[in-house]
Amino acid sequence: MLTRNLIRNSKFLYSKLKQPTRVIRWNGQVSSQVNVPDGVVSALVGIVGKSNVSTAEAVREQHGHDESYHKTAMPGVVVFAQSTEHVSQIAKLCNDNEIPLIPFGTGTGLEGGVVATKGGVSVDLTKMDQIVAVHAEDFDAVVKAGVTRQTLNTYLRDTGLMFPIDPGADASLCGMCATSASGTNAVCYGTMRENVLNLEVVLADGTVFHTAGEGRRTKKTSAGYNLTNLFVGSEGTLGIITGATLRLHGIPDATAAAVCSFPTVQQAVDSTVQVLQCGIPMAKIEFLDEVAVDACNKYSKLDLNVAPSLFLEFHGSGTSLEEQVSIVDDLCKMNGGGDFKWATDADEKSHLWKARHDVVYACTALRPGCKPYSTDVCVPISKLAEVIVKTKEEIDKAGVIGPIIGHVGDGNFHVFFPVDQDNEDEMKVIKGLSEKMALLAISKEGTCTGEHGIGLGKRHLLEKEVGSGYNVMKHIKKSLDPKGIMNPGKIFF
Amino acid sequence: MLTRNLIRNSKFLYSKLKQPTRVIRWNGQVSSQVNVPDGVVSALVGIVGKSNVSTAEAVREQHGHDESYHKTAMPGVVVFAQSTEHVSQIAKLCNDNEIPLIPFGTGTGLEGGVVATKGGVSVDLTKMDQIVAVHAEDFDAVVKAGVTRQTLNTYLRDTGLMFPIDPGADASLCGMCATSASGTNAVCYGTMRENVLNLEVVLADGTVFHTAGEGRRTKKTSAGYNLTNLFVGSEGTLGIITGATLRLHGIPDATAAAVCSFPTVQQAVDSTVQVLQCGIPMAKIEFLDEVAVDACNKYSKLDLNVAPSLFLEFHGSGTSLEEQVSIVDDLCKMNGGGDFKWATDADEKSHLWKARHDVVYACTALRPGCKPYSTDVCVPISKLAEVIVKTKEEIDKAGVIGPIIGHVGDGNFHVFFPVDQDNEDEMKVIKGLSEKMALLAISKEGTCTGEHGIGLGKRHLLEKEVGSGYNVMKHIKKSLDPKGIMNPGKIFF
Repeated sequence: MLTRNLIRNSKFLYSKLKQPTRVIRWNGQVSSQVNVPDGVVSALVGIVGKSNVSTAEAVREQHGHDESYHKTAMPGVVVFAQSTEHVSQIAKLCNDNEIPLIPFGTGTGLEGGVVATKGGVSVDLTKMDQIVAVHAEDFDAVVKAGVTRQTLNTYLRDTGLMFPIDPGADASLCGMCATSASGTNAVCYGTMRENVLNLEVVLADGTVFHTAGEGRRTKKTSAGYNLTNLFVGSEGTLGIITGATLRLHGIPDATAAAVCSFPTVQQAVDSTVQVLQCGIPMAKIEFLDEVAVDACNKYSKLDLNVAPSLFLEFHGSGTSLEEQVSIVDDLCKMNGGGDFKWATDADEKSHLWKARHDVVYACTALRPGCKPYSTDVCVPISKLAEVIVKTKEEIDKAGVIGPIIGHVGDGNFHVFFPVDQDNEDEMKVIKGLSEKMALLAISKEGTCTGEHGIGLGKRHLLEKEVGSGYNVMKHIKKSLDPKGIMNPGKIFF
Repeated sequence: MLTRNLIRNSKFLYSKLKQPTRVIRWNGQVSSQVNVPDGVVSALVGIVGKSNVSTAEAVREQHGHDESYHKTAMPGVVVFAQSTEHVSQIAKLCNDNEIPLIPFGTGTGLEGGVVATKGGVSVDLTKMDQIVAVHAEDFDAVVKAGVTRQTLNTYLRDTGLMFPIDPGADASLCGMCATSASGTNAVCYGTMRENVLNLEVVLADGTVFHTAGEGRRTKKTSAGYNLTNLFVGSEGTLGIITGATLRLHGIPDATAAAVCSFPTVQQAVDSTVQVLQCGIPMAKIEFLDEVAVDACNKYSKLDLNVAPSLFLEFHGSGTSLEEQVSIVDDLCKMNGGGDFKWATDADEKSHLWKARHDVVYACTALRPGCKPYSTDVCVPISKLAEVIVKTKEEIDKAGVIGPIIGHVGDGNFHVFFPVDQDNEDEMKVIKGLSEKMALLAISKEGTCTGEHGIGLGKRHLLEKEVGSGYNVMKHIKKSLDPKGIMNPGKIFF
């Protein structure tokens, strides 16, 4: 009761408080950071309990960065929500007091989405870790915000089902919704966009709603606007995703894996296009340039041919698998591909794909003591070889190490630069290369980001890419978050 | 130049005009119909030329209804746009003068989307019929608003590609975007939601923009909000879709078709669930109840077993097809399915699926002189048998004919009532049944419409279904169409 009153009165208690504001230097830019008044901190304690509110520097520091190169900016306070009702009350409190509110899942993002550039409240959702329901017959699962993809897949083990989207990190599923994550399986199973049936969302004013209506979990709906896909990829700027209903898929009967190397990037990409044109339902088709292959060999103790290569995975039942493999083998050979290196048993397959998934560590290990600076772009597949080749030329010209890894079936690729983030000159070179890559992709009917998001680092590119759509996005943002408290400074300046 | 000046000055010319308003009776409700002032009609002539503006009653009548039971309400004027620039100028004119603007494709919708309940301007997009580009290597095509799906597929014939979404009618592709169409292939290829890469849209104020940025056609993007999927399914209420970039798919090497009958609805649905759980990539898996099968037998001269049945289509390459067919055959038999009736040659396959596609005519023919009243709902597949059985009981209790046809793999089904639309008592009974069906679906975690849309007939159900999301939708509508001119009275009252 005390809590409710506190919340009810929060507007009157705090809205007139002059919020202490201080100007800080942020990545070379000036930013106005809103600290959180003591009264609001007390009200947060009233909502979630003392042990779930922290102003300790170590906790704030941990919540002030993700896995990207973006510098840490700490929130004023971190609050650990345990329920949707908590999140709703926290949002209302922050909205009434015009305090920034930043959702935090696992902090594994790659574009600075959780960095508290304007201070405020970081709401940590990891304690909301319930798997609410699995409807095996309907191929869906309902989870709360803190459940990670590996936790869900472990839980599903006995059902014969899986959630296939795999961005690499063991990210929270609702965080993956917020960033529209994808990864190696997208060529077969789509991205989060195709795999979310419903979202539970808390708006800035504390309103709780479900994008498709409470409890709904149909594969299709034509009832009103598709709010689900509006919130998927909104990066916390429209509301906080506190729960999700996700599509599940059957675990395939059989899988096969292989690596094939090619004389040139073009031939690897040509093979991919032809494989897709033949309608082969590839589970994964990943490109690694020779620098990345070399890094894998060293880090994961493989002996792959150091050349542009495709890592392939096939899913299916026995006979169809053999047929798929045979067609792909033929197509790769026609394009100058070397002999397939087959992973025949489970251990070998697992080792091969672990090597692919560890590629970011492998690339980082190319320069001991450095951290990875990761960026991604996406283009129509017909432009991919050209864009990769030009990017490699730029990397060589700059004299830096920049292995290229691509979800080639989607036209999406990454460069993982191992970089000394404290060396300003070096960072300038890498940022310049990242910028050139993004502008090149935009000039080739592509996007400056296929899966990392706009976050902090690509805001200046968004309007260039989407034109008048930028204002449409801002109108929508304004209509749902009029005070601009939801993850401010992300997507838009 | 004259035209440009006309438009530029339109605000001053007409905004002060008092628009003649008359109160009309509309489906038993009172509606305020805005007629179009002569000055606006002249300005429209200035934009598109005299031959492309019509106030003839026959033309207005044709544009005042779709293929649904909803009564005709004529627009004040019909204008045939020939370019996006035309649509932009028309929108600006209507917005300045607060005149309703209704996009018109092929008029094949099923929920009254084009009915001019509030009068205004119907903008016919059929003359914008350019296929702008086909990028075979990238599996995409760019079309303007008037291109229909069959026209595109005919054009694609030599590329080995196809656009698979098939709602039955030869609808315009942009109309299919606007209504988020799907149909028999959705179980395999998804709905429009999964198959649109970019949209060209004209907003109420005449702004032209591309939901993913002009010219962009990547399979994935994380750059800002997913405006593409916000406009897919928005039923003309947020803007007019004047162009689309669509995903294409390879035409399968081989196809096979079969019909299998079952003792009960439950057994047909159980077979479907098991087939999907086995990961069989069914191209189509359609349910027909015994009433619909009987109608098909009579209309299409088939001799199918009159029982709940599945119509199946398999796509694949030779070997994988055989394997799929064999597994599905086994599963159906385990669930009491009768012998498969195979369509072995191309003619037989085509005859079988033509019969399925003609089912609406077959059902209508059960009562000569009547028209079809079609409604659809969608539920999680585990609830499907129960909802179909209850619906059949209600239909029997009411003593009417109501064949049931379902896209069973998606949990989506239709009833096609052959009805005398002039008989008010009969219409009341059918509307009552349709309402019960929708409420039943909503009570079973489902939606009142899986593919027809909210349009006119299900507006009263939307808030019940989506709860607080209804206000979120209205906020978005208001932010993009503040004067409410875009297809008013659809989705919302």
